Amino acid sequence: MSVSVKAILEAKGRDVVTTGGNTTVAEAAKILNENRIGAIVVVGPGGKISGIFTERDVVNAVAKHGQECLDKPIASMMTAKVHRCKEDTTTDELMELMTMRRFRHVPVEEKGKLSGIISIGDVVKWRIREIELEAEQIKAYIAG
Amino acid sequence: MSVSVKAILEAKGRDVVTTGGNTTVAEAAKILNENRIGAIVVVGPGGKISGIFTERDVVNAVAKHGQECLDKPIASMMTAKVHRCKEDTTTDELMELMTMRRFRHVPVEEKGKLSGIISIGDVVKWRIREIELEAEQIKAYIAG
Ligand SMILES: NC(=O)C1=CN([C@@H]2O[C@H](COP(=O)(O)OP(=O)(O)OC[C@H]3O[C@@H](n4cnc5c(N)ncnc54)[C@H](O)[C@@H]3O)[C@@H](O)[C@H]2O)C=CC1
Ligand SMILES: NC(=O)C1=CN([C@@H]2O[C@H](COP(=O)(O)OP(=O)(O)OC[C@H]3O[C@@H](n4cnc5c(N)ncnc54)[C@H](O)[C@@H]3O)[C@@H](O)[C@H]2O)C=CC1
Repeated sequence: MSVSVKAILEAKGRDVVTTGGNTTVAEAAKILNENRIGAIVVVGPGGKISGIFTERDVVNAVAKHGQECLDKPIASMMTAKVHRCKEDTTTDELMELMTMRRFRHVPVEEKGKLSGIISIGDVVKWRIREIELEAEQIKAYIAG
Repeated sequence: MSVSVKAILEAKGRDVVTTGGNTTVAEAAKILNENRIGAIVVVGPGGKISGIFTERDVVNAVAKHGQECLDKPIASMMTAKVHRCKEDTTTDELMELMTMRRFRHVPVEEKGKLSGIISIGDVVKWRIREIELEAEQIKAYIAG
């Protein structure tokens, strides 16, 4: 019954905010702030995914290295091993993954190309739609 | 069918990491990092909730004010109007609230006292349990 990543991307769009690994922590904070997002996908030559840098990484950098970290490149602080999903991944699978591995953002990759990103809030939003749909179906069933 | 805040708190505990409004942004980042959490509840005299300060607030402070913000008190950057819930609030209600208002953390208040905190990840985790339970019930029904 669970919705697919494809359906979510078709509704919310496939644009992904990306940047290069040389971006500084201070610049990354600006990108996150201006786009009102919690994660940036870091890409290398040819647009290949090379990492993910999140708001939690900003906090951890400040906590561990203080103000000096702000001028450092994010490449040294990002998560390089990025867990991706496919368009046929379901919201139930994403919920499980996000809970177990403590990810809040999962880039979508199809045929080696970045084709979108799903956040924990996207999953919750779609889960609400499913609940509403189920409730309508039960009502229709009761109404005969 | 949706689980209550009370049930979640009974399983995960009622401790809330709090701090005073004079805490600096740099200190707050350390508290977030050490506790592996995304939000601190800011309390005033008598433990009354006076605000909430999140990892997104750290990013926004750095984005807007650069390194100078790190020594500033969080009181000037926190969200002072904190949306709270009760122990009988349900996960469905929280999902709706978190999506519409873009909150990821909701402190729980009973009789004017802080009695816990629920994050978006807590809600998703409990939603998985509900899905598993439903699946078991359907299986049992089919098995006769
Ligand atoms: N009302 C709504 O439509 C939505 C509300 N929310 C709420 O907003 C708050 C924050 O959401 P979170 O999911 O934790 O994270 P977030 O702030 O990173 O995500 C917000 C939106 O931005 C998108 N996004 C994130 N990174 C992106 C990137 N690099 N490129 C392009 N798009 C990107 C996400 O897919 C999501 O739709 C939560 O309280 C959540 O419940 C989240 C998504 C949709
Ligand atoms: N495997 C698990 O049991 C859990 C996994 N997660 C995952 O971890 C990642 C981050 O979780 P989020 O919910 O976004 O935020 P978060 O990192 O703030 O929450 C993590 C845990 O800390 C608790 N918490 C947050 N602030 C607190 C405070 N001030 N005092 C006491 N406890 C506090 C939350 O209730 C939650 O149980 C997500 O990917 C999520 O799916 C989240 C909760 C439980």
